[in-house]
Amino acid sequence: MSIYLHDIPLTEAKSRFQQELKNAGLWGVLGQEEIPLDEKAAGRVLAESVWARISSPHYHASAMDGFAIRAENSLGAAPSNPVQLRYEEQAVYVDTGDPLPQWANAVIPIENVEPLDDTGHISTEPRHPYSIRIRAAITPWSHVRPMGEDIVATELVIPAGQTLRPVDLGALAASGQTSLKVARVPRVAILPTGTELVPIGSDLKAGDIIEFNSVVLGAQVNQWGGKADRFPITIDNFDAICQRVEEAARDHDLILLNAGSSAGSEDFSVHVTEKLGTVLVHGVAVRPGHPVILGMITRKDNSKIPIIGVPGYPVSAALTGEIFVQPLLTLWLGRKDPSQEPVITAKITRKVNSPQGDDDFMRVAVGRVNGQVLAAPLAKGAGMINTLVHADGIALVPRGIQGLEAGDDVQVKLYRSLKEIDQTIFAIGSHDLTLDILAQFLAQRERRLVSVNVGSQGGLVALRRGEAHFAGSHLLDPETGVYNKSYINQYLPDTPVSVFNWVGREQGLIVQKGNPKNILSLKDLERSDISYVNRQRGSGTRVLLDYQLGKLGLSAERISGYAQEEYTHLAVAAAVKSGRADCGMGITAAANALELDFIPLYTEQYQLVIPNTVLENHLLDPLFDLTQDPEFKKAVLKLPGYTVSDMGRLVEQ
Amino acid sequence: MSIYLHDIPLTEAKSRFQQELKNAGLWGVLGQEEIPLDEKAAGRVLAESVWARISSPHYHASAMDGFAIRAENSLGAAPSNPVQLRYEEQAVYVDTGDPLPQWANAVIPIENVEPLDDTGHISTEPRHPYSIRIRAAITPWSHVRPMGEDIVATELVIPAGQTLRPVDLGALAASGQTSLKVARVPRVAILPTGTELVPIGSDLKAGDIIEFNSVVLGAQVNQWGGKADRFPITIDNFDAICQRVEEAARDHDLILLNAGSSAGSEDFSVHVTEKLGTVLVHGVAVRPGHPVILGMITRKDNSKIPIIGVPGYPVSAALTGEIFVQPLLTLWLGRKDPSQEPVITAKITRKVNSPQGDDDFMRVAVGRVNGQVLAAPLAKGAGMINTLVHADGIALVPRGIQGLEAGDDVQVKLYRSLKEIDQTIFAIGSHDLTLDILAQFLAQRERRLVSVNVGSQGGLVALRRGEAHFAGSHLLDPETGVYNKSYINQYLPDTPVSVFNWVGREQGLIVQKGNPKNILSLKDLERSDISYVNRQRGSGTRVLLDYQLGKLGLSAERISGYAQEEYTHLAVAAAVKSGRADCGMGITAAANALELDFIPLYTEQYQLVIPNTVLENHLLDPLFDLTQDPEFKKAVLKLPGYTVSDMGRLVEQ
Repeated sequence: MSIYLHDIPLTEAKSRFQQELKNAGLWGVLGQEEIPLDEKAAGRVLAESVWARISSPHYHASAMDGFAIRAENSLGAAPSNPVQLRYEEQAVYVDTGDPLPQWANAVIPIENVEPLDDTGHISTEPRHPYSIRIRAAITPWSHVRPMGEDIVATELVIPAGQTLRPVDLGALAASGQTSLKVARVPRVAILPTGTELVPIGSDLKAGDIIEFNSVVLGAQVNQWGGKADRFPITIDNFDAICQRVEEAARDHDLILLNAGSSAGSEDFSVHVTEKLGTVLVHGVAVRPGHPVILGMITRKDNSKIPIIGVPGYPVSAALTGEIFVQPLLTLWLGRKDPSQEPVITAKITRKVNSPQGDDDFMRVAVGRVNGQVLAAPLAKGAGMINTLVHADGIALVPRGIQGLEAGDDVQVKLYRSLKEIDQTIFAIGSHDLTLDILAQFLAQRERRLVSVNVGSQGGLVALRRGEAHFAGSHLLDPETGVYNKSYINQYLPDTPVSVFNWVGREQGLIVQKGNPKNILSLKDLERSDISYVNRQRGSGTRVLLDYQLGKLGLSAERISGYAQEEYTHLAVAAAVKSGRADCGMGITAAANALELDFIPLYTEQYQLVIPNTVLENHLLDPLFDLTQDPEFKKAVLKLPGYTVSDMGRLVEQ
Repeated sequence: MSIYLHDIPLTEAKSRFQQELKNAGLWGVLGQEEIPLDEKAAGRVLAESVWARISSPHYHASAMDGFAIRAENSLGAAPSNPVQLRYEEQAVYVDTGDPLPQWANAVIPIENVEPLDDTGHISTEPRHPYSIRIRAAITPWSHVRPMGEDIVATELVIPAGQTLRPVDLGALAASGQTSLKVARVPRVAILPTGTELVPIGSDLKAGDIIEFNSVVLGAQVNQWGGKADRFPITIDNFDAICQRVEEAARDHDLILLNAGSSAGSEDFSVHVTEKLGTVLVHGVAVRPGHPVILGMITRKDNSKIPIIGVPGYPVSAALTGEIFVQPLLTLWLGRKDPSQEPVITAKITRKVNSPQGDDDFMRVAVGRVNGQVLAAPLAKGAGMINTLVHADGIALVPRGIQGLEAGDDVQVKLYRSLKEIDQTIFAIGSHDLTLDILAQFLAQRERRLVSVNVGSQGGLVALRRGEAHFAGSHLLDPETGVYNKSYINQYLPDTPVSVFNWVGREQGLIVQKGNPKNILSLKDLERSDISYVNRQRGSGTRVLLDYQLGKLGLSAERISGYAQEEYTHLAVAAAVKSGRADCGMGITAAANALELDFIPLYTEQYQLVIPNTVLENHLLDPLFDLTQDPEFKKAVLKLPGYTVSDMGRLVEQ
């Protein structure tokens, strides 16, 4: 622990790095190479501005099939006053694109010409007549593409730094180029290190971590115009890592040393960098991802190569790519037009806390409800790559701000197009497995379902705030035995909504395979040898549990693990599967998914609550179509414990 | 001419094509293949939805370096009441990511622990102590990433149809995938045909057309997820083209037969398609690009392959790619998320006419002036690939609308990001070669210069309508001999503007190399053996010419070619170079660029007229910085006939 990381602000980290890169002569385009002008040049970055060598067209070209003439010779021609021109001397047939004879200055389209033979009759060889007769005058340069119409020799065709698009290649060819000077592709070595890492495809035992950061970083590097070289996994051994870094330094332009960037006992990155060069920064005040190392490695010939110590948590690794690697590749390629994700302003859907000293890059789901763009924060864990997959964008809570209140404006860098955002159905509420299947089917119908799981009551609150297109809910009224109605009256007194049946589903206890502890009813939860995993407060399942505990006269306090909360049925099942708990309440499908046993106890209605304002537009049409779609119902019924007979029926308005 | 093309509406053309593709079983994903899960999978399209095979983490993992304990054993620990735990029985050291022992349910970070030796002193082996002392209780599952925190086995990871992004690959690996089923890449044969075509790099003679459409189409196909195969040029010979098409049909999924799609004497595409299959559509009511052929070729085994006859004009060819090829590739790949260009609403800057029966795809330059997004139509010629390079987007004037008035709203599909649009300096006015150099230098300074050449007066009109950030102008007042001032008073009475000197430049007569016709002054223009090429009305050069003609008592009517108008200096030079005229008025640099001779006559001030509202924001800052930049001035002075001594001086406010 001799060196402990010390977070510095992002701007300072970047400026230290920039200064060292400048000193090393690496602050600009790395180099250029000449490549043939063909379709494979697309996506490369032009290293020098290109000026036209020739004009396009490079001669006066006919723009029609017809006869090249001198316009002066057509003077006076009119329907009642035809003018006759002798072939070869005064008129020559030209196809579109053919050059005009020196003496000609206009083309008369073939359909406006009467070709004649030597007897004055219509010629049988319309393209080689004896003469032609015309009945309208034309002006000089009619139906001619004059030389240089498109491009004039010496004009600027494409400026340096442009990433070449297909049409750019056309213009470059038209202007007489035959090869192109483009920026050399930066070579990036990606070095996964860690004794606990195993390659994709390995048999796994507890403690093994599948090494996929190098795949993510590699794909990022390639996407940003570099060439990624993935190295094999190196174990946590100082000398072995030193050797790898030296090897990589030989023929690359940048080294990404993944994991071991923190200050733990087996975190060698900073020591390796110190030994082989200089550590510029150890720790950047960004979240997630703060244990970043920026340094320079010195090669045998005294030249330098930058090294980035990338944190091991996958979200940190991917964001380190975006924050440090992408700008460096853009610089080295001289790209003047890096593809930029659009940035929009959105309303944050719930209060979030951020460390005041950090730039906090927050993953968010984005949707538009009632014309308002909303950003719902996703889980923060840096280990959760899946949250980055589900993120529609990244919202920055800048350094100096301690957090945001629900409803505050936030800037979001979008990973999706605005069009996709507008096709997004934003569901906040109770989780159900059928929503995953719905998402799949909607994806075939130009809709994207984003479901944020906050439990049934949380969903109704979101509807009241106008922050969701629908909420899945299964809140049992203990008084009436009716689902949702009384809660809607309570939570949504001023929001007209309609309620539709979605699925019926079995609720019960998820237990270990073979039910080794012989759990048969809720009464067993009070047993001292039984540990329970609960759903969070406000979820329909929790309401059902508390209702049934009350009915049975059981006490929550006597249930070991009652305070352990999970947010989805599958998370409860996973807790049981892993042995963290002996049982938890949930649905049949979750038990089956993880091959656990299930004790059925109750059947409940899972309903969709939809604001009437949302029903008025067409966003949800595909969802209602699906309630009548046998294929969709078949897919739902593959999940055990579900009924769909009443799907889509309006039960409340 | 037996078959003449007959335009049908785009929607009908597409639906005929769709029906035939359905009949042939080609209306959907073409096929799938299994590929390894590595960085090269990025950009491929997932053919089947992927569900998690394992959870992530797949075991309870420590989230910190520290000691795994049972939380219950920490109960009661407080600063004044330390609790001691025996090593191995009650506490085990774990690194971040290590699995918890079966009996443990929490991790206490190492910095919150006092490791002790068997004498009760601080241990010298902090990771293998005799016991540990803690001074705070922790709750169960603290600092633990429980199994399934990120991904729970069986949940949906990525839906079918998603184009794989770097982070998606991470989530797929984390969920236990080792290979991926992705859509097979459609193979597209691109067949350039035409006797007049020559490959890139050929020596050119009049009539030769550089074959680059196949490069543009090939790059488009690759960009949209297909694999392009460019064939060699085939001459205009029916049998030769038939043979090529049959060869291409063997091992491709789509044939693009480029050029010969119209109904001219050497347009064989429709005949070839008829012979080898079926013509579904010949002619689509879109502009540019209407002579499109859609058909199906029948292979020897009776299977079918679609063929698209692509028009030869480069703009038509590129837009045919966008309209017909891109949607087909998207369908065949099963992409649910085709990258969509943003569509915005813009104000059209001038009246445009459109054929009522056609969907008219109009190239436009786009900028934002005073908060208003403007679209300036570019030239319409289908042969001008350069207009597509300069286009910031495509505005659609739909079928049924005959045109638009200046100021009408139009929908624009953007080729650039909104951020780039907001960094765009929109110049409308007189053309000058230094604007090309300015564009180049601005590109290094996060600005993009779009200059639309409409002449000096047109620029002032654009400023009055609030449609430009500045106008370059060199309008001489014949009364005062002062540039611009009186015109500004006349055209911009209510628009406060400032005028800055830009460059001084020589105006004179551009003549053939060696001046074979011995042209010495404007008086020679009246000679009957001299033809002239003029600039358009409203341009500063035209004003200068007319002023000088008046002064000299010369008559425009006696000048042959006075009515021939060009819009830029280089276009005038090109007209002289090609022999279309003997001389034209313009600037030295234009003559030099095309190696012509120049007769200097006058020196004029080229000035920038800038609305004061524009000066207030920072968009133009880099432009003013450049007026003080020696590098920039050096680049300008490389052009002959320019002075920069007064550049950037405010002359009028």
